[in-house]
Parts: sequence; C-alpha cells; structure tokens
Amino acid sequence: MGNFASDNVTGISPQIMAALATANEGTAMPYGDDAITQGLRDRVAAVFERDCAVFPVATGSAANALALATLVPRYGAVYCHREAHINVDECGAPEFFTGGAKLVALDGPRAKIDAAAVEAAIDGVGDVHRVQPAAVSITQASELGAVYKPEEVSALGELARRHRLALHMDGARFANALVTLGCAPADITWRAGVDVLTLGATKNGALAAEAVIFFDPAKAGAFEFLRKRGGHLFSKMRFVSAQLEAYLTDDHWLENGRHANALAKRLAEGLADLPGIELLNPVEANELFLALPDAVVEGLEARGFRFYSWGKVGEKQVRLVTAFNTRQEDVEAFIDAAVALTGAAVRASA
Amino acid sequence: MGNFASDNVTGISPQIMAALATANEGTAMPYGDDAITQGLRDRVAAVFERDCAVFPVATGSAANALALATLVPRYGAVYCHREAHINVDECGAPEFFTGGAKLVALDGPRAKIDAAAVEAAIDGVGDVHRVQPAAVSITQASELGAVYKPEEVSALGELARRHRLALHMDGARFANALVTLGCAPADITWRAGVDVLTLGATKNGALAAEAVIFFDPAKAGAFEFLRKRGGHLFSKMRFVSAQLEAYLTDDHWLENGRHANALAKRLAEGLADLPGIELLNPVEANELFLALPDAVVEGLEARGFRFYSWGKVGEKQVRLVTAFNTRQEDVEAFIDAAVALTGAAVRASA
Amino acid sequence: MGNFASDNVTGISPQIMAALATANEGTAMPYGDDAITQGLRDRVAAVFERDCAVFPVATGSAANALALATLVPRYGAVYCHREAHINVDECGAPEFFTGGAKLVALDGPRAKIDAAAVEAAIDGVGDVHRVQPAAVSITQASELGAVYKPEEVSALGELARRHRLALHMDGARFANALVTLGCAPADITWRAGVDVLTLGATKNGALAAEAVIFFDPAKAGAFEFLRKRGGHLFSKMRFVSAQLEAYLTDDHWLENGRHANALAKRLAEGLADLPGIELLNPVEANELFLALPDAVVEGLEARGFRFYSWGKVGEKQVRLVTAFNTRQEDVEAFIDAAVALTGAAVRASA
Amino acid sequence: MGNFASDNVTGISPQIMAALATANEGTAMPYGDDAITQGLRDRVAAVFERDCAVFPVATGSAANALALATLVPRYGAVYCHREAHINVDECGAPEFFTGGAKLVALDGPRAKIDAAAVEAAIDGVGDVHRVQPAAVSITQASELGAVYKPEEVSALGELARRHRLALHMDGARFANALVTLGCAPADITWRAGVDVLTLGATKNGALAAEAVIFFDPAKAGAFEFLRKRGGHLFSKMRFVSAQLEAYLTDDHWLENGRHANALAKRLAEGLADLPGIELLNPVEANELFLALPDAVVEGLEARGFRFYSWGKVGEKQVRLVTAFNTRQEDVEAFIDAAVALTGAAVRASA
Repeated sequence: MGNFASDNVTGISPQIMAALATANEGTAMPYGDDAITQGLRDRVAAVFERDCAVFPVATGSAANALALATLVPRYGAVYCHREAHINVDECGAPEFFTGGAKLVALDGPRAKIDAAAVEAAIDGVGDVHRVQPAAVSITQASELGAVYKPEEVSALGELARRHRLALHMDGARFANALVTLGCAPADITWRAGVDVLTLGATKNGALAAEAVIFFDPAKAGAFEFLRKRGGHLFSKMRFVSAQLEAYLTDDHWLENGRHANALAKRLAEGLADLPGIELLNPVEANELFLALPDAVVEGLEARGFRFYSWGKVGEKQVRLVTAFNTRQEDVEAFIDAAVALTGAAVRASA
Repeated sequence: MGNFASDNVTGISPQIMAALATANEGTAMPYGDDAITQGLRDRVAAVFERDCAVFPVATGSAANALALATLVPRYGAVYCHREAHINVDECGAPEFFTGGAKLVALDGPRAKIDAAAVEAAIDGVGDVHRVQPAAVSITQASELGAVYKPEEVSALGELARRHRLALHMDGARFANALVTLGCAPADITWRAGVDVLTLGATKNGALAAEAVIFFDPAKAGAFEFLRKRGGHLFSKMRFVSAQLEAYLTDDHWLENGRHANALAKRLAEGLADLPGIELLNPVEANELFLALPDAVVEGLEARGFRFYSWGKVGEKQVRLVTAFNTRQEDVEAFIDAAVALTGAAVRASA
Repeated sequence: MGNFASDNVTGISPQIMAALATANEGTAMPYGDDAITQGLRDRVAAVFERDCAVFPVATGSAANALALATLVPRYGAVYCHREAHINVDECGAPEFFTGGAKLVALDGPRAKIDAAAVEAAIDGVGDVHRVQPAAVSITQASELGAVYKPEEVSALGELARRHRLALHMDGARFANALVTLGCAPADITWRAGVDVLTLGATKNGALAAEAVIFFDPAKAGAFEFLRKRGGHLFSKMRFVSAQLEAYLTDDHWLENGRHANALAKRLAEGLADLPGIELLNPVEANELFLALPDAVVEGLEARGFRFYSWGKVGEKQVRLVTAFNTRQEDVEAFIDAAVALTGAAVRASA
Repeated sequence: MGNFASDNVTGISPQIMAALATANEGTAMPYGDDAITQGLRDRVAAVFERDCAVFPVATGSAANALALATLVPRYGAVYCHREAHINVDECGAPEFFTGGAKLVALDGPRAKIDAAAVEAAIDGVGDVHRVQPAAVSITQASELGAVYKPEEVSALGELARRHRLALHMDGARFANALVTLGCAPADITWRAGVDVLTLGATKNGALAAEAVIFFDPAKAGAFEFLRKRGGHLFSKMRFVSAQLEAYLTDDHWLENGRHANALAKRLAEGLADLPGIELLNPVEANELFLALPDAVVEGLEARGFRFYSWGKVGEKQVRLVTAFNTRQEDVEAFIDAAVALTGAAVRASA
C-alpha cells in the first residue's frame, strides 16, 4: 500500500543489503580500523573531488549535532531557518552536543535562508554579553522540499567567510537535491563554501548511515572524541561504512534520488489541478506539500494511504514523501483515489 | 585466521542477518512505531518474566550513558569499578549525558565491586558541597571476565535500596555471564535489585544493537527525550529491534554465549600449563587474561594471530576474547602455536 | 557628571553600606547558616505575605539562570521576548545552566509578551522530536522600560497553569515597576501566578545582591545543589543577605525606585517636546528611549554626559537610565544641554 | 568567642572595607570597564613581576571551575588530589563548567600530589576511547594545610610541559602559603610552571573576591565568555576589584596571612603535648588537624568554641583554622580550656 508518510518508512535497498552481506565475511578490526571504512574515504574523495575527513555515524541528528559541536563554541550562535530540522525536530540535540550554543531562527520562503537574512541577524561580535556568531546551517533539500542553487550557497559561503562563520549543510536529502541540480557534488558543497556536510543515506536506501564530511580535514578538530563521547562510534563500524560505500558506488545514490524525485513529480502532476487541491510549493525534490479538503484527507486515509498532516494544528495541509523504492502503482492508486474523492466532493457541493 | 582481539571483530550471525532481511519487507512507521519494536517488548517481558520499558539503541556507550542520565542528577555520584568501561573506555560519555555527574572509581578484585566498597565511599548526603550519591554501576561479565553471582548482585541491590541509589548493570557481555551462571535472567537482574540493564547484543552476534531495559517502567522517566536529544533514536528503528528480537528468540543469545565461553575455556586449558605462561584469572565468560613471554607474543603475532596487550604500558599481559563464531580450528591453531613457541623458548633458555 | 548609561554605573546606597558594616561584627557560620540570612527569609515573607524559599546570589544572570535551571528540563523550551535579557544579554547563561534548553523568542510591543503569543508558540507536547514546553519568562520592568500590569501577569499565569509551565519573572528592576504599579508585591507575583521571582537589588542600590524567591518552597527542588555547582554559593553569605535585608527594610527599595522613576519622568518631560527629539516609549519606570539627532548626541557626549546608543547599528536611538542616587542637578544639566543643542540645530537648519 | 571552624567565618578587614567605601564615590562604567579594575592589572603585574590576564570573580568555586573550563576540553582529564577542594567540595562545579571533563583523583601525603603520581596516571593519549590528559591542579596551601615548595611545583610544571598539560593552582590560601615559603609570588607560580592561579582573598580578609590570573595572557582564551555565561561577570565590578587591589597593596595580604599562621602555630604549640591530643600534621599555614578525645571535643564545644570535625564519620579528628583577625585571647582561651579538659580526662582515667 502507499505509505507516503516519509522516506524513512522504507527499508534497505538491495545493493546496500548486499554490501552488508559482503562486509560480514571474516573478521575486521573495530571502530573504523577496517578496510571498508578506509575505502570509504577514497570513495568520498573521488565523488567530491577532494580529500576530506569522513566520519560515519548512524542518525541524522547525531551527524548534525556532532558537526556543529565540532565547529561551534558553547557560547556560539548558529543561524538557521526557523523550520530547520536542527531547530524543531531534534529535541535540542545541537544545544546538547555544543554545550548550550544558541540556534538563531531566521525566516525565509520554503524553509530556505539567504545571506541577507543571516547578515541582518549577526550582532554583538566580541561583546561578552552576547553569544558569538559561529555558524550558518542550511538544509539541502530544505524541510519544505526546496533546493538551494549553487549561487545561493555561494552567497552564504561568501558571507560566512567574511564573518568567520562555519557553513554547515544538513544533507539528509542531499541526493534528491543533487539530481535536481544536475551539478557536481563539489559545486554545491565546498566550491560554494560549505565547510561540513552531513550526507544522509538513511532516507534514500540505507539501514542507518550518515557521513559527516569535513572538506578541510584540519577543521575536523575534536570530532572523533566528541563522536565517541556521544556514543556514536560503532564497534562494528564496517557495517555503517559498507552502507555508505555502496550508496556512493555506481551512482546508486543518484539513481535512488532520481526515482524518488520522479514519482514526486508524477504525484504533483496528477494532483495539482484537481478541484479543491492546492500544491503549496513547486516540487524540487521528493516532497510535496498540499492543501486538501478534509473529506479528501479522510477518504485517502480510509483507503489505507498514509501521510502526515503538516503545519500547525488546524491547518489543512499534508506532506507526501516519495522514496527510492516507492512503487509507481502506489502513486497511480493515490492519484486515482484523489481524483475520485475530489470529484465526489465537487458533486456533493454542486 | 584467529582474531582474538575482541568479540567486536566478528560480524553478524546468520539468524540476525535473516531477521534484517525479513524486517526489510514492506514499509513501517518510523522511530519505533512499528510491529517489530512492539513485539520486542513482549519478547523481553517473556525472557525477563516482567513487563519492562525497553529502548533499543545501537552502541553500548549510548546505552550506558543514557541509562545513567535517566537516573542520575547532574550533581550525582555513580559508584563503579576503576576499570569499568563507563569509567575508562567511553571518553566521558556518562559525564556528557548526565550533564557532569561524577564517577567514583572503586577498587576490587577482577574488576568487580562489592557492597562494602560502595558503602565506604558513600559520603556527604544532603551536603550541598558534595555530589550526591545516586547510582551504582556494575558490569556483567566484568571487564576482567569475572561474573557476578546472584547473591553478590543482591547485596549491592540491598545496599542501593537502603541508600536510595539506582543499580545499573552494564550487560555488554550479559549472555556470556548468564550461561555461566545458569540462572534465569530475572535472577541476576531485577530479582537481585537491578533497576536498569543495558543488554548488549553487538558483541554476541548483532550488527549494532543494545537494549536499555528498565525493570520498573515508571523509572524510565525522560529516557525517550534524552535518547532523541542524544541522536540515538533511529528512524528505521525496526532494524535495530529486529536484531534484538532475533537475538532473544530460540535461545540464540545463549547458544552464542555458550559457544564463545566454551572456546575460551578450551584456550585456557590448552595454554595454562605451558611453560612461561600464566593464566591471570579464572575463565568465567569469554575472556582470558594471560602473562606471556615476549618471544611468545611476538611469535604469535608473526603467525597472524591478533589480540590486544592489556594493562599499562610495560606489563606483559594479553587479553584473548572468543566470540559466537570463533572457529574451533583457530583456537587449536593458537594453542599449537603457543605450544611450539613456549617449547622453543624453553629449549632456547635451556 | 551625568552618567545615564545604566543604573549599574552607580554605587552602594548609604543604608546598604551601613548594613555591610553591621554585618561585619564578629564571626558567623558560612554558606548561609547565619542569623542575617535566616532573618532575610522572614523579611521576604513579610514583604510578599507568604513563606517562600529565598536564595541570595550576586548577579542577575546567575539568578535568572539558576531559577530556570531549577524548573526547566534540559530538553525544555522557555518562552520569552526576543529582547529579553536572558535571550540577548547573558551570553547563553540559561542554556548553560539548564543543560541546553531552548529559549523560544517571541515578539510583542515594548519588550512585553502576552498570553496569546505564548499560546501560539506552544507546540509538540509529548512529541519526542520537540523540546518540551516548560516555562514562560517575563521581565518586570521590561527591557524597554515597560511595566506588566497585574492583569497581564495573571493572564500569563493562567496560561502557564493550564499548560503546566513555570512562570518566571526577571525582576532586575522590580522595585521600579512596583512603585509605578502601586500594588502589593504579592499582587504582581504569586497572586498573579508567578512561580519564581529573581528580585534584583544591584541596580537599585546594592553592591551585588539578587534574591531568587520561589513562592512555593516545594518547587525550589535542586536549586541549592545547582547554586553551589554554579559557583554561586557565597562562603561569607551574610554580606549578600545583609544587602537584601537592608534593601527590603523601611521601604528602602521603594524609595530608591521612586527617586529613579521620578527623575526619569523629569527627563522625559524636559526632552519630549524639543525639536528633533522623539520619545519612543512612554516612561513607566526608570528608562527612557529617545530618537535624537546626531548633532545632539555628539554635543551631549562632548559635554561629558554618558549614555548608550541602543538598537541595531545605524539606528539613531539612545537609552537614558536614572538610578536611586541620580542627582537632580545632573538631570537639569542634561535637559539644559539638550535644549541648547536642539535650539542650535534648529537655528542651523533655519 | 573562638570560632575556629574556618577562615570564612570571619568578616572583612578594615583596609578592604575602606577600599569599598572609596570605590563607592561617583559613578563608574560597569563590567570591568572602570579605573579600579584596570589598576588591578597593574598591581598584579607588579606583585607577580609579569603582565598577566587578571579576572576578578567572587567565589573560589567559580574561580577554579572557570580557570579549568578555559584550559580543559570537555573530554579532558584533570589530575588532582583525592581530597582536593575541586574534587570533593564544589558539588561538581569543574565538571559542570568544563562540560563534563573528568577529575582523576590521586593520592599523596597531606593532600599534596607529586609528579610521579601524575605521570603514573597519564594514559590513553590520542586514544579516542579515553578522556585526554589536559591539566594538573594543585592547592596551595593544600586541603590538609601543607605547603608546596617551589621545587615541588617546578617538578609538576616540568611534567606538565612535557605532557602538554596545563598547571592550575588553587590559591584559596595562597597568602598563607606564601608567607611560610618567604619566596616571591612568581617563584611559586609562573617561574615554577603554573599557568593559571586562582588567587583567593575571601578567606583572608575580603568580602568575596578571587582573582583568576593567567600568567600568559594568550592562554586566557574564552575565559571572558565563560565567565559571563556562568553568571560571574559583575556589573559593579569595581567593588570586587577594589577588594583585590586593597588586598595586594602594602603587603596587606601577607600581613593577614602572617597573623593567621602565627596563631595557628601558637595553637599547635599549646596543644600538641597535651595528654590524649595528637597533632596529625605539622602546621605550615593556618590549619591544624588534631586527634582529640571525645570528652575534650565535647567540653570545648560546651564552652562555646566552634570547629569542624574532619575526616569520615567515626574518626575523632577536628580541624582548627585561624584567620587574619583571630584574636590572641581566643587562642589562649582555647588552649587553656584544652589544658583543663585533658587534665581532667587524665585524672578521670587515673
């Protein structure tokens, strides 16, 4: 049945499952001192065209919080969108890992922030009464499914350099953004000024795997101690690394992203023009945000489709997310149901 | 080849790998709102003869630190052995998660502490200048391979109750201890006064899975918020739960533990009487601690065997660990090599 | 000369200095186990018409942060105004003391928040991904010199009770607000739903003294341990308590507040109608916010008057603060200078 | 009456009280931007023969915790004596301010540690599983009244340099130690390798004042932000600085220390040979530790003398502390009473 609640309702892709099986042969030294983890570094270097410090962890919240804790002092300020995952969906993990740094919530359309908004918020540099500007964090694709273009990231990167801020990219859906952009991974990260990327694989086919990538290894600082201290250093690390290695091999991540994005587009096309349905944002990755009549929401749920309502209580919005293995037939069934339900609604109101 | 460095150099057992594959069918709601995670609670209740609050996480450090952070105030004291994993092998994870509680290091033979040692250390109750006694933490089996007997745990449990301390058991090798004891899991945990067990599966056949079990669900308190905030709430939780479910099914955990323990005993028998070799502790679980002549150590390493030296730099001790899938032939090869090397050493010194 | 930069540029009132001298006779047991500290509790009980838990500390940031840390879990949310001292002037002290709770910045005129703004911000109760609503914090008088009326506080108190939030009042300028309101201290605090007041004396005549007052002593919880752990338990506590005792005796605090408020009003009257000068807010306590022409600002500074510019860089606003011992003659001199300077400016532009 | 409980039962010396009165003239800019605080830097430079970064705070726990938090990463280890004030008397303040660093408790006679004990404890450098060696902390005079000689500090300083550890000196009773040593302040601090001194004045005549002194200003790092964030930046800073300035002027600190030490010696001479009384340590500063018969303890208390019992419950030990203003007549009265009580005890047992 069609479960569009999130891309994390899916399982593991066959390629990544196979990689786990392969990694399971024989013994390997623990905590990353294994051949697969070492190979992953080469893989990331090839994909991003640069030698990087690469640290596998297993959840996005851990990846984000550890990346920020490495770059931000406890008395630091992190500028991010009000709707950023780090601000509203991690139960304060960044505050916990940084030792109490402050997330400064900014506004901007479609959960994206721009350089002007950050610049306007910077304040109190050197003033001992104020938390000190330390980092900018953006999400690619954003929490409302929007994609940052290279020039947008570059503008933030330039601002960050000018104010000596670190630039962090939460890449939970980085692959979905990347296939939309069609650029090189480097173009949207370090060439645009990103210091650290948390590259998500979990939502796009892995069991549980995220890579924290510092494009300048010298900036990785105390990451390894913070990771261990946070309980995020895996003894059987090779199984986390193997997921990431398979993910980045033979364009597996991109193919997965392309599939998810294509079905999101198909959903949008099938739904946008139905009576009473409003597509709230253009679809740039694998998420749709829709305003739906109550009767349609209830009808879809009654037929077994799953999705989250979105926004504050009382707003009639839903989010649909497609994934690497969402089935075309489920998408078509969802559209058909919506057609039937909206038609019925129109007839009922006629 | 024989890798006796740790039980975490091994991979995933076939049963647990199969459970991952099964869990991979279809979609499931994230963050533990899935059938496998719910089933795990029933499984734990059956195994431990009691309804418990059960929280899957993926590393032992996370499990220990979160368990302690739930029960210990930031100004609390945790009594543990000086050699306890939480004290020396987690880079301060308990201090981090508790917000700066103090581990009070106690001594005791074979990395076990007893009630008298804890009682002697308790001090300053109600005195605002002192950290406040809050918990006792023991490791089953201990870091030196010793097993706490039910009456030993009960004595600590009685003490803990009397002083209103929580009793935490780090069960990274709980199965190995359990098969040695031959008692019911309940007998060595809640019936003996244990409040929270961190039940390890990773070292005994899982990919990465530990269950934090509060025997009184009312004591789980803020665990769920702390877990999320620590980045330890998995979106595809069912894959962590599936490992634990398979682990506890059909005595898989016990069979794995029995295999490891038996081979440890075989190693001990084969090595203890060799000239120049001293078995430093009786073997009660799956770890051996030996004093070996330098030449023997070097000879074994030259033949490709892997193991850690132990103790402070300059002490000639090694630790051998067997695992659920250690091969009998590797054990015999290790013994044969030791026989040859010690014989040669004897001849050389003759 | 006229220093209107802040009420913290002043010194110690004669009454409080005398109290320090009196407290200096003989010896006294440390850490609050002295007669003066015990007497302070009775004094507070009499002033607030209720037995309270009273804890002297020496800075406002400590008082606020410790009060919040006592009532808010590390995964909690604190609702406050965007301009609140705790949000912008304490370098993250609340985050530090709470272990990383989140301040949720709200808007509202003159740095005051209302119940509707808080209600709109409450979200995610029980959702493990979200920080949990825990407290509301208001400043009396506000950072822009506005005073909360009893009915405004009551509305927040009612909301707080309904959502099980603690209500904290930052009373750095509580006396200034109180003399404006003319009500009983109880009416604007616990009778209106305030759980904890940080009662400032430093800005109003003390050397360094603030009282954290929990109106329900049962809610003081771990305050004493957190205070010691924060380095805020004074060994010679009697000298902090003596300041507070003198402050609350014979209406000393109210007389000091009245003096400061009266001179602030006089400044407002003398300045408001001058050409080019705009009084930005009504004067309700001892702070004025003015828009002044550049030439006037420069002229005043050239004549030795001191005050802070206010707002973001580039805005031509200044803040004037009067204190318990501001001299009438300095106020008149300031007004005279402003008259002369604005007259000159008018003539120059004529 | 004779109160020998601690040197913090005393009040403020006349010189320091006079300095508060002088500082109270006129207005001054807040937070240390005043002439007295600036003058204090020159005073410290003169006394310690070196330009230093000097930060006034008001409690010893704050001074110690902030000094350590500046120099020690959250995953760091601090080596100190088991009886160190930072380890047992600050309710975990160092853990709180450092973000959870670990105090490693070492043994050594009379609460002093030596280089060999520290060296033996250093372990796990670069090992991500271990907290990382970061600092050594010693107390001058020690918690058992012993004084570190320059060569003892130098040995620790040399060790610290070799292992890249910071060397912190808790100087709560620095003046008492200094007058015993008769050396220059520099000889026992930076010339011996001390990086940061927390120089206490509170116990020796101040109201509440401690100076944190970094001998290399470049090492002061984030101290100012951590101080503000900890609530330890005083708005009316000049009153804290004025205490320290008076303290260090005209040898006031040394004269106070000499007085206290001399009376401690007199107590020791008068008590040491009485029957049943044992002087447990030589008297090197202003503290005596004695074993006394129960009847004598009770008799002294009945006559109104005050002192603390010491050590663990059940040990019959007391501590006597003299202060800058302890009266000779109270010392003689104490000795007379002890003579009478021990004579009675002897007669009773005869």
